[in-house]
Amino acid sequence: MDAEIIAVGSEMLTPQRVDTNSLYLTGELNNLGVEVKTKCVIGDDLERLSDAVRRALSRSEIVILSGGLGPTEDDMTREAVALALDRKLVFQPAIAEALAQRFAQFKRAMAEINKRQAFVIEGAHVLPNDRGTAPGQWIEESGAVAMLLPGPPHELKAMFERQCLPRLARMVPKQIIRTLQLRVTGMGESDLDQLIAPVYKKYANPATTILAANGDLQIHLRARCATAGEAEVLLAEVGGPIELLLGDRIYSRNGDPLDVVVGEMLRKRHATVSVAESCTGGMLGERLTAAPGSSDYFLGGFITYSNAMKMELLGVAPETLDQFGAVSSETAEAMAAGARRRTNSTYALAITGVAGPDAGGEDGPVGTMFVAIADAAGTHVAHRQFLGDRTRVRTFTVQMALDLLRRRLWR
Amino acid sequence: MDAEIIAVGSEMLTPQRVDTNSLYLTGELNNLGVEVKTKCVIGDDLERLSDAVRRALSRSEIVILSGGLGPTEDDMTREAVALALDRKLVFQPAIAEALAQRFAQFKRAMAEINKRQAFVIEGAHVLPNDRGTAPGQWIEESGAVAMLLPGPPHELKAMFERQCLPRLARMVPKQIIRTLQLRVTGMGESDLDQLIAPVYKKYANPATTILAANGDLQIHLRARCATAGEAEVLLAEVGGPIELLLGDRIYSRNGDPLDVVVGEMLRKRHATVSVAESCTGGMLGERLTAAPGSSDYFLGGFITYSNAMKMELLGVAPETLDQFGAVSSETAEAMAAGARRRTNSTYALAITGVAGPDAGGEDGPVGTMFVAIADAAGTHVAHRQFLGDRTRVRTFTVQMALDLLRRRLWR
Repeated sequence: MDAEIIAVGSEMLTPQRVDTNSLYLTGELNNLGVEVKTKCVIGDDLERLSDAVRRALSRSEIVILSGGLGPTEDDMTREAVALALDRKLVFQPAIAEALAQRFAQFKRAMAEINKRQAFVIEGAHVLPNDRGTAPGQWIEESGAVAMLLPGPPHELKAMFERQCLPRLARMVPKQIIRTLQLRVTGMGESDLDQLIAPVYKKYANPATTILAANGDLQIHLRARCATAGEAEVLLAEVGGPIELLLGDRIYSRNGDPLDVVVGEMLRKRHATVSVAESCTGGMLGERLTAAPGSSDYFLGGFITYSNAMKMELLGVAPETLDQFGAVSSETAEAMAAGARRRTNSTYALAITGVAGPDAGGEDGPVGTMFVAIADAAGTHVAHRQFLGDRTRVRTFTVQMALDLLRRRLWR
Repeated sequence: MDAEIIAVGSEMLTPQRVDTNSLYLTGELNNLGVEVKTKCVIGDDLERLSDAVRRALSRSEIVILSGGLGPTEDDMTREAVALALDRKLVFQPAIAEALAQRFAQFKRAMAEINKRQAFVIEGAHVLPNDRGTAPGQWIEESGAVAMLLPGPPHELKAMFERQCLPRLARMVPKQIIRTLQLRVTGMGESDLDQLIAPVYKKYANPATTILAANGDLQIHLRARCATAGEAEVLLAEVGGPIELLLGDRIYSRNGDPLDVVVGEMLRKRHATVSVAESCTGGMLGERLTAAPGSSDYFLGGFITYSNAMKMELLGVAPETLDQFGAVSSETAEAMAAGARRRTNSTYALAITGVAGPDAGGEDGPVGTMFVAIADAAGTHVAHRQFLGDRTRVRTFTVQMALDLLRRRLWR
């Protein structure tokens, strides 16, 4: 079965707005085994909209409209769909009454204009909206179905989940869907793809998607089968070789981000961590404390931007800074050791480098990064040269630091 | 003049992908005074695509397609547009030759399949692609124009800017566009809208847009007029009263974010700042160091998650923590004073609070936040109760801390 999604509203056609409802709806439809073939954003234009609805219903079994159900003149989804189906709009006093009560509940008088929301397309099922004023509608016609859903995402999601999904599940032939999600770090997207494409390209089912953001890669495998057993077998057949190829670059198999994985490992070992950051300015601490409950393992940290602060707060020796410079393996080591000494943490991570965009001069080119990890056994430093702007360099460095800690914890 | 945008490719119809090309194109078209009336994403389906192109060209003067120009079977934008216009595809040996040279330059042999990219729709102008292999095409037909652009954003942008914009500028009636951008913090989006809507609602020109993210609000006014003078007058007529209503809640008139504004103020005064963070874990330091050159004014900071760290690193007195608790006005003050003392900075900001999601117990409910600022004159504490999840609470608190410093610097 095929689906089309139409978002309605001129405000959705600005350079800033993105139609996120369609992403949610696509995910839910895919889970049912339904593919989205087209999606559109159409402004407040009765003729364009009714034309689009007519054509969508002529070639797809499922057409979902979002938005344009409000009380104002601009809101013309009801009229457009009625026009496309050549059906009448019928005033339903019960809906108007419910609306009036809702307003009364919030101690407000209902403006006359709100009564427009009580018009329903002939033959449609009304979908009550418990999170807003605009009711939705479900209309079947010659084997196809059109859904009119409100635009605000929390209203749309609640209505779709509770009222449309059960109805759709009865319409759509049953399929079992199983997914495998691997998260990987420490390599680029194209390197990853080159490595695993020979495995997954042979299969249309499971479908493979690779997502990349901020030095973090996600591999999604989705298998659709008649039984759960078949789906599991397919996932193992494709996922197994991929896992083998990637080895310990895979840090998560359940969707958890790297900071959560590292946090769980620390918690399990009753270990703690502290940080010392130069050019990342607190970003590593922020990542390590993003997860709730991080106080179980995160003790604290030092943001030491200047040389004076590195000496003062972390006890980095002036000779180290003089001889090797602030951006050096030696300074990174001294920072990590200093943070660990001052906080008594099991592990300490330290970052020093040139985030740019101004060239680092004697500190080396932009993107030069030293990340150190200290524990009872001593210190270890990793060196990388990142490309890109300041934000990219800082984000990739923080990811690298978290991965360094993960690898240390795995041993 | 009206425009439609069509993004091509089944990979754009997944739950993860968003068509960002259309946002860029909409912005550029709006700048020319052209409105986007419809935008669509269509999968790799020749019939659907050619039908969409035919209908778009029948009602809009400008139709822009992105993607589907690659060398594989899936790439069918050329065929679909040729079909829609009932024109032939013509093989251009010169393009094939240029492609082969490009491959040779990267020391790779060109696969036979790449020759598909050398087919051009009869009567089209070829748009060379200096950032990729797929050339674009510009086709005029009965007063309308269709553009075929490559999908990768950096290829599309370069081609559109250099080759399409100048051609479009000759087609579109001249308009002058002037914008006013105000950035505001310290109030909610609906409060802001309620305050200024009575002013801007009276005007369709300038068009007003309000964007909200992470406690930060942006107001964009866009005036379109025949002359720059008229546009400036219109902006003053609407922008003036808005600025008056918002007063010192406006922190920027040139688009600079709050951390940059604060950084500039510190730099001008030759002042420095340090931070002491509890529940934000480094996020304030990260914001203050996001701008290049922040080492001019940012000295360093302390991430003190535990009570022990607050005492150890910042010298917060045990009695203060015992008597008032870690989440208190008194502890925030002591943290700020401690950070300032230890770094010798002109200003110090400190944050302590309950970011959640677990209830704070004796520390008060989730979202309780104390932000302190210390300088030579003493310390000052602000208290707020934020709603939302951990990320939202932390982000809003950091924004509040930056605003506290801005207000102190303005006095």
